[in-house]
Amino acid sequence: MKETDEFSILKEFFLDLGNQFHDSSDLLIGPGDDAGLFSEKNKELIFSTDVSVSGVHFLENLEPNKIAFRSCVVAASDIAACGGSLKWISISLVLATQDKSWIEDFARGIIEFVNTYKVPVLGGDLAKGKECSVSVGVCGSIDKDNFMSRAGAQSEDDIYVTGTLGDAYLGLNFLKENRYLNDHEITYTNKYLKPKIEFEFAKELSLIANSCIDLSDGLLGDLNHICEQSKLGANLFLEEIPFSGTYDRALTWGDDYELCFSLPPSKEKDLNQLIAKYSIKATKIGVMKEGNKVEVFDNEKEIHFDQAGYNHFNE
Amino acid sequence: MKETDEFSILKEFFLDLGNQFHDSSDLLIGPGDDAGLFSEKNKELIFSTDVSVSGVHFLENLEPNKIAFRSCVVAASDIAACGGSLKWISISLVLATQDKSWIEDFARGIIEFVNTYKVPVLGGDLAKGKECSVSVGVCGSIDKDNFMSRAGAQSEDDIYVTGTLGDAYLGLNFLKENRYLNDHEITYTNKYLKPKIEFEFAKELSLIANSCIDLSDGLLGDLNHICEQSKLGANLFLEEIPFSGTYDRALTWGDDYELCFSLPPSKEKDLNQLIAKYSIKATKIGVMKEGNKVEVFDNEKEIHFDQAGYNHFNE
Repeated sequence: MKETDEFSILKEFFLDLGNQFHDSSDLLIGPGDDAGLFSEKNKELIFSTDVSVSGVHFLENLEPNKIAFRSCVVAASDIAACGGSLKWISISLVLATQDKSWIEDFARGIIEFVNTYKVPVLGGDLAKGKECSVSVGVCGSIDKDNFMSRAGAQSEDDIYVTGTLGDAYLGLNFLKENRYLNDHEITYTNKYLKPKIEFEFAKELSLIANSCIDLSDGLLGDLNHICEQSKLGANLFLEEIPFSGTYDRALTWGDDYELCFSLPPSKEKDLNQLIAKYSIKATKIGVMKEGNKVEVFDNEKEIHFDQAGYNHFNE
Repeated sequence: MKETDEFSILKEFFLDLGNQFHDSSDLLIGPGDDAGLFSEKNKELIFSTDVSVSGVHFLENLEPNKIAFRSCVVAASDIAACGGSLKWISISLVLATQDKSWIEDFARGIIEFVNTYKVPVLGGDLAKGKECSVSVGVCGSIDKDNFMSRAGAQSEDDIYVTGTLGDAYLGLNFLKENRYLNDHEITYTNKYLKPKIEFEFAKELSLIANSCIDLSDGLLGDLNHICEQSKLGANLFLEEIPFSGTYDRALTWGDDYELCFSLPPSKEKDLNQLIAKYSIKATKIGVMKEGNKVEVFDNEKEIHFDQAGYNHFNE
């Protein structure tokens, strides 16, 4: 067998990533067997998967460690959006190279992720292909009564968003320019490359919010999922929305991985306590209402958008 | 938004696959939210993922429903290899086409799988790319004391294999000939396209076997994983091994998804009862022993192989 075969790659670079977190995640058997073995007898479990494709979800020339880290973050973000605690991740990697330094740098990004969020890698798979893609599975634990569904919004709920929308889009464009970036510009590229997932905040938020979604495809498209599944409409007030760059990109591009959630007005005080406790920026930007679509108003005048959310089948 | 975008595709073809099995799988929330919600409070859980890439794991011109079915089977096979019961599957699909009839036929293969094995689809993801790949996550339940590990083999265990090795390789080659196939030939292509997973047999086998692996990469390579992890060697007797075609391909190609397991000689009677109960063909082909490699003997003369197992990084 060649040195660079599947099993030697797995053994050399991917065998024990995050194994210091096996106990805290109730992981009994990690990578290396037919399946990973784990346990969760007191709570319910949630699972989600996200696939990131070269040239679609990340720039083809992006450093491998950044591809790896971001692929994990965008998948794990779904666990926070439900209010869960991240338990483990699993990685299916289609490699378009056999360059060991590329693979080693990719593994470095995984290690950075598992150390940041203190979870183990349960397992994964490795294959060669013509284009690189990374499919990350994420598993979390949750009390089912606290699951923040997209279907739970109520009419008259206030709509909130965390952070500032559009930062990631600006960061992505700085990266595309492929030049030396100053510190100011790097704060934006970091928003794109390393969105921060606020698991602890989201977990407490799940006790008071009625619905929640993470903003992967843009506020308008993602809030529309809440509307569809909650059988409601939403009014957004542009003057309230914190954004960078132009409002149309900030509201439709996505990649911010901030949370958008709906909250009964009676819970505003509880939210403010959470905001203070976790030093989170969360802004009231609109209200859920009867209806079936998202309407955006700029000082009472309705604004129309060409496209509601990022859709890579349109690119 | 275009009609063929991600969300309309998901809604049209992938929304409720296997939802009649939500209750039997303790699945509380299926596809459509940020994550799927499920429960398993009495047993432990196992998870595995397998990625199948066009042109590597399946022929580029294979019908989409066959790509889908086979991708699910090869992933789910890992659950049987541990002795677990399949609970749900999750599918990340990278689409190289926007042809609706292709997608619809792919979904048909998923439906055939979930109906055959009576499990729901928990969720998944969809992206476009230059080449088709399917990453399937599979989750099963198990009692941790019965987990059939690759690391559990004992010296003097007998080594068994189910079915007949090499059938899948012959079937794959019939498919490559791209011509009308007769019924005899189709029995081989079915071994490649639709290996049958014997979950119930494997579950009972887990009570008596010391180690087990499913044969994805060929008997020699896969048994070598058992040897490495059990810190043992193995002697195989070629005259005992049931195979089709040539022995070198049958022992090194893989794709058969039969089970190879090691059993204490004292459990042979129990195994024979299981074999009769489930009408399984299982053949004693060798013995575990002290050492660190797999040795194959043809009437006491050792045979050497160029390659121990299928390794797609060598192709």
